[in-house]
Amino acid sequence: MILTLKADATKPQIDSVLKKIKELGFTPHTTHGKEMTIIGVIGENAILSRDIFEAMDGVESVAPISKPYKLVSREFKKENTVIDLGHGVLIGADRVIVMAGPCSVDTKERLLYTAQAVKEAGARVLRGGAFKPRTSPYAFQGHGEKALRFLAEVRKQTGLPVVTEVMNVNDVKLVEEYADIIQVGARNVQNFDLLKAVGKTKRPILLKRGMSTTIQEWLLSAEYVMSNGNYNVILCERGIRTFETSTRFTMDLNAVPVLRHLTHLPIIVDPSHGVGIREYIPALAKAAVAVGADGLMLEVHPKPEEALSDGPQSLLPEQFAKLMGELRAVALAVGRTL
Amino acid sequence: MILTLKADATKPQIDSVLKKIKELGFTPHTTHGKEMTIIGVIGENAILSRDIFEAMDGVESVAPISKPYKLVSREFKKENTVIDLGHGVLIGADRVIVMAGPCSVDTKERLLYTAQAVKEAGARVLRGGAFKPRTSPYAFQGHGEKALRFLAEVRKQTGLPVVTEVMNVNDVKLVEEYADIIQVGARNVQNFDLLKAVGKTKRPILLKRGMSTTIQEWLLSAEYVMSNGNYNVILCERGIRTFETSTRFTMDLNAVPVLRHLTHLPIIVDPSHGVGIREYIPALAKAAVAVGADGLMLEVHPKPEEALSDGPQSLLPEQFAKLMGELRAVALAVGRTL
Amino acid sequence: MILTLKADATKPQIDSVLKKIKELGFTPHTTHGKEMTIIGVIGENAILSRDIFEAMDGVESVAPISKPYKLVSREFKKENTVIDLGHGVLIGADRVIVMAGPCSVDTKERLLYTAQAVKEAGARVLRGGAFKPRTSPYAFQGHGEKALRFLAEVRKQTGLPVVTEVMNVNDVKLVEEYADIIQVGARNVQNFDLLKAVGKTKRPILLKRGMSTTIQEWLLSAEYVMSNGNYNVILCERGIRTFETSTRFTMDLNAVPVLRHLTHLPIIVDPSHGVGIREYIPALAKAAVAVGADGLMLEVHPKPEEALSDGPQSLLPEQFAKLMGELRAVALAVGRTL
Amino acid sequence: MILTLKADATKPQIDSVLKKIKELGFTPHTTHGKEMTIIGVIGENAILSRDIFEAMDGVESVAPISKPYKLVSREFKKENTVIDLGHGVLIGADRVIVMAGPCSVDTKERLLYTAQAVKEAGARVLRGGAFKPRTSPYAFQGHGEKALRFLAEVRKQTGLPVVTEVMNVNDVKLVEEYADIIQVGARNVQNFDLLKAVGKTKRPILLKRGMSTTIQEWLLSAEYVMSNGNYNVILCERGIRTFETSTRFTMDLNAVPVLRHLTHLPIIVDPSHGVGIREYIPALAKAAVAVGADGLMLEVHPKPEEALSDGPQSLLPEQFAKLMGELRAVALAVGRTL
Repeated sequence: MILTLKADATKPQIDSVLKKIKELGFTPHTTHGKEMTIIGVIGENAILSRDIFEAMDGVESVAPISKPYKLVSREFKKENTVIDLGHGVLIGADRVIVMAGPCSVDTKERLLYTAQAVKEAGARVLRGGAFKPRTSPYAFQGHGEKALRFLAEVRKQTGLPVVTEVMNVNDVKLVEEYADIIQVGARNVQNFDLLKAVGKTKRPILLKRGMSTTIQEWLLSAEYVMSNGNYNVILCERGIRTFETSTRFTMDLNAVPVLRHLTHLPIIVDPSHGVGIREYIPALAKAAVAVGADGLMLEVHPKPEEALSDGPQSLLPEQFAKLMGELRAVALAVGRTL
Repeated sequence: MILTLKADATKPQIDSVLKKIKELGFTPHTTHGKEMTIIGVIGENAILSRDIFEAMDGVESVAPISKPYKLVSREFKKENTVIDLGHGVLIGADRVIVMAGPCSVDTKERLLYTAQAVKEAGARVLRGGAFKPRTSPYAFQGHGEKALRFLAEVRKQTGLPVVTEVMNVNDVKLVEEYADIIQVGARNVQNFDLLKAVGKTKRPILLKRGMSTTIQEWLLSAEYVMSNGNYNVILCERGIRTFETSTRFTMDLNAVPVLRHLTHLPIIVDPSHGVGIREYIPALAKAAVAVGADGLMLEVHPKPEEALSDGPQSLLPEQFAKLMGELRAVALAVGRTL
Repeated sequence: MILTLKADATKPQIDSVLKKIKELGFTPHTTHGKEMTIIGVIGENAILSRDIFEAMDGVESVAPISKPYKLVSREFKKENTVIDLGHGVLIGADRVIVMAGPCSVDTKERLLYTAQAVKEAGARVLRGGAFKPRTSPYAFQGHGEKALRFLAEVRKQTGLPVVTEVMNVNDVKLVEEYADIIQVGARNVQNFDLLKAVGKTKRPILLKRGMSTTIQEWLLSAEYVMSNGNYNVILCERGIRTFETSTRFTMDLNAVPVLRHLTHLPIIVDPSHGVGIREYIPALAKAAVAVGADGLMLEVHPKPEEALSDGPQSLLPEQFAKLMGELRAVALAVGRTL
Repeated sequence: MILTLKADATKPQIDSVLKKIKELGFTPHTTHGKEMTIIGVIGENAILSRDIFEAMDGVESVAPISKPYKLVSREFKKENTVIDLGHGVLIGADRVIVMAGPCSVDTKERLLYTAQAVKEAGARVLRGGAFKPRTSPYAFQGHGEKALRFLAEVRKQTGLPVVTEVMNVNDVKLVEEYADIIQVGARNVQNFDLLKAVGKTKRPILLKRGMSTTIQEWLLSAEYVMSNGNYNVILCERGIRTFETSTRFTMDLNAVPVLRHLTHLPIIVDPSHGVGIREYIPALAKAAVAVGADGLMLEVHPKPEEALSDGPQSLLPEQFAKLMGELRAVALAVGRTL
């Protein structure tokens, strides 16, 4: 942490800053210049005390040096984390993994039909919502445990591992029982009790970025999961909220190489939510593969106009199959398979 | 809901849109023009089916007419909601109510000292955090139930009702036992299970706006609380996330008159979080009273440099007392008391 | 400027950074720590070379210490700048100055009528657009020089000094001839050639904030004007672009105390554009006075439905008169007059 | 345009709305429902009168139907515009066109060296700044006409057509003389007088998106150019301003398919500014090709640490050459050449 003192900081002010640094067990390194005095504060987690220094008289600003997270960082682990889902599905390895399926699970028949279709086209994980976070209390909220059972049955029939969302600490055990990957949705990215709870499960966690979460905050949310013992976290970019209203959210594909630099965790992209309009999704899916994502999450529904949620952004199975061919070509072009 | 059809929508496409409208139990009102065909769709909650229509061929766009919320709206209840906390404290009435106290509860002595100081200066509610949502897993997470007990004891000694945050559905019962107002924080504004849970309590709910929640989404979150039976919701603007980094968040004071127009619920403002820098808080607090807020939430701590969280944005008791005098003058200028 | 070197920066990398610092005529102050090496770079305008250092191997990050602007800063001039418009009108003094009038000048009769009405209600400056920046090429673009002549005639009849916008370097001379204050609009805040040109005039410049301009960028734009010789700059906050769509822009009233801290220049607020909806403007105007603005800019039109632009956000003369009474009360409450 | 009337709109209010519609020469189509009355307003450019209707009593909201722009739209011209720069360079055709070169032109030797290097690697247009919009008045402002001459000489030696920026209406003639493509920068995207001026030239215009310009506003800016007679406009996405600070801007690649749907104009992407950090640029460049851009603009400099601007985001010639190979593979994967 670096403290920059105010140009007119007094000697007593500087002294009490130095005293506080030592009290907290850190070592100060002071540099006096004509225009400024700066103090480097060395010590484990010094930045976590930034509030204390910001509140002191004479302090102009406090800047972090080392990053506030640890377990998620490249410094902690140099090589990429690869998560083994069983069934030969590795996330974070050479193959780009596509997770596909309906936004909400509706009937078992339709789920099975969709699962078979996406599997045939090359998807390796089935997605499907059982608990649905909905902006309106009057909107469909998900079929809950019944949907989880459908997912498990369809897994048995197709061999596709399943990813589904948990919204509530009390449902973590239940979802853990059924899911191969537990999803924490964008609206819960800073639901810290939920992060702690999923951090104690044995399943990989797919952690979506919040709609206005900075990359640093997102990594700190992943750090909540890891510091509770679960090291298998998949980061999923799904669009951020900006001033632009012609798409549902703004995909932040910059985030992929930035994350690759900062963290060893696998990174996937969800263009369905990031764009929100069916006809634009294929273009963004190809961009996501080209930018270096380890996987994609895509909504597919055989009858979008009857979907219980997100119909307008669901691909038809035949659109999905066509897209998979295109994605394969892009994956090869960037040295990967799909 | 108004559907605008594409300029080149075919007769069969239009017919299947009309068929779907009737299937869903709504009434279509069609207008054909040279450039366009528009269909008004009349019926309770028609807008909740917008996804279905957006996914249909031939449909250009879908626009809501009636608002998607109901219980929170001015149409539902014309006169302002006034919430009676007991002890003669009314929120939403003529008097602007100031809630003050430390961000996190630390020691009982310090809490009592602060409570007495803010009470003497004119605060009518004591704030204090027991459960603290923190971006980093390594930051102080609150003293939990012990802090709740301190709050209750200080309430007994000072007569000040208490507002404190709940983060987790499993803590709702516990917090309800101790608190006079249950706060749902910005990061949980779309934690829908938590909203349902507090909607089943008997305490007023102080619902903070999320850092990137639109006014409409925020009102829908309030609708979650109300539709679960709890009609006493206080909306608290606390700054939104924008590109500007010279303050912690950007206070959206526009929201106050907009909410006043849309809803009957009381509206308060939290300039401590909205600005995040001590010296700018008094100016924004005065602006909040002038713009028409029903109350303020302010962080006060006798030793900000030792505060367990948010030291840099906590006012000293003497700064708070001075500010209260200034706020009183502004309140009178806009026809209120404080 | 502070350089933080990468944890694994090599000796030769560090040496070449030090060499470059000296080459550029600055003095390095180096601190070696266990986790990092930091180098303070002392010298006039060192930060302007930040690009060079960011591009060097071994450099992790570059942070400014001293601010990148000079003439606009409080350090350069401690006391507030007060701009004398003649006619006894001072901007930046105790009295809050209200500038009012139509968005676009239409007929001379209507302009005179409006000017007399706003003057009677207490406005001290007349606003009116002659050159109008419009998003669409098909929208009304202003009456140009004819409108400038109307403004000058109405000034003669009412004694109100006039503020009007210039959009183009070639019109600067013309506008300077007619206007008492030359406005640079939000869309031109980084039209640097225009800033240089108005910096060479003798008139005070009213510089609106751009819709996504940070406070620092805005101050650098003011620095363009001042560094060209014109020290009379008035900063005008007029709302920033955010994700919220229920108002036209989001008023950033935080900016007022932040600017007060950073600069000696007078600060005014334009709630008409910042909110964009007539019925919400009075609340925000009161907030702007309470937060400490030196003045307000308000759109007033006797027939908003016939206004050539911005009808929906124009106050009627009688609404304006009522608001002025309310603003006077708020001004007194914060120790000012109006 | 669709007017939705307030639920409690009175008969006289509705009548005066209908009267105004006819006065303005439009045709009203009225639909009365239980909850609402809606009026479709048919006629050329009806939406440009939206302000008038929004200001009328009884009107709840005004929504556009037809888009506010015309010449730029797909409706106006179904097939993609292809711009022929001579030298066999077509923008908007199958081949993805890469424009590369230094941010600012420095010496002629270095410009020539860079031009030869990027040409050899496959770039088809040379970029180089002569007039530089800089946030600080103290930063390097470009070598002006001298730099234009260097560009022309290097064009002669390499055969590469040249793109360079104009900032000022008075320099348009000069830049037109030297440039093959005239660039209007992000900060001037709503400098309407400049748009009109370049609309009267014979050169293709490369119009960058402003940092907070919506897609619709951007298209309206392109409409300014086209409605002044110049139909050769290239749209260039270069990153928008969001809350995320870990990259310089946030690339909005969603914009590419959205624009493809709305307009016939060619679309290119500038990842150098959109990310702003050298090591992340290749990933985003590949994404831009995959998402369907017709071209890329990339900053290349042989000595980034000596560049007069944007050193940290300039690729080295050897990085650029390597990237071009990778881009070629991605282009082929999406059915194009490069």
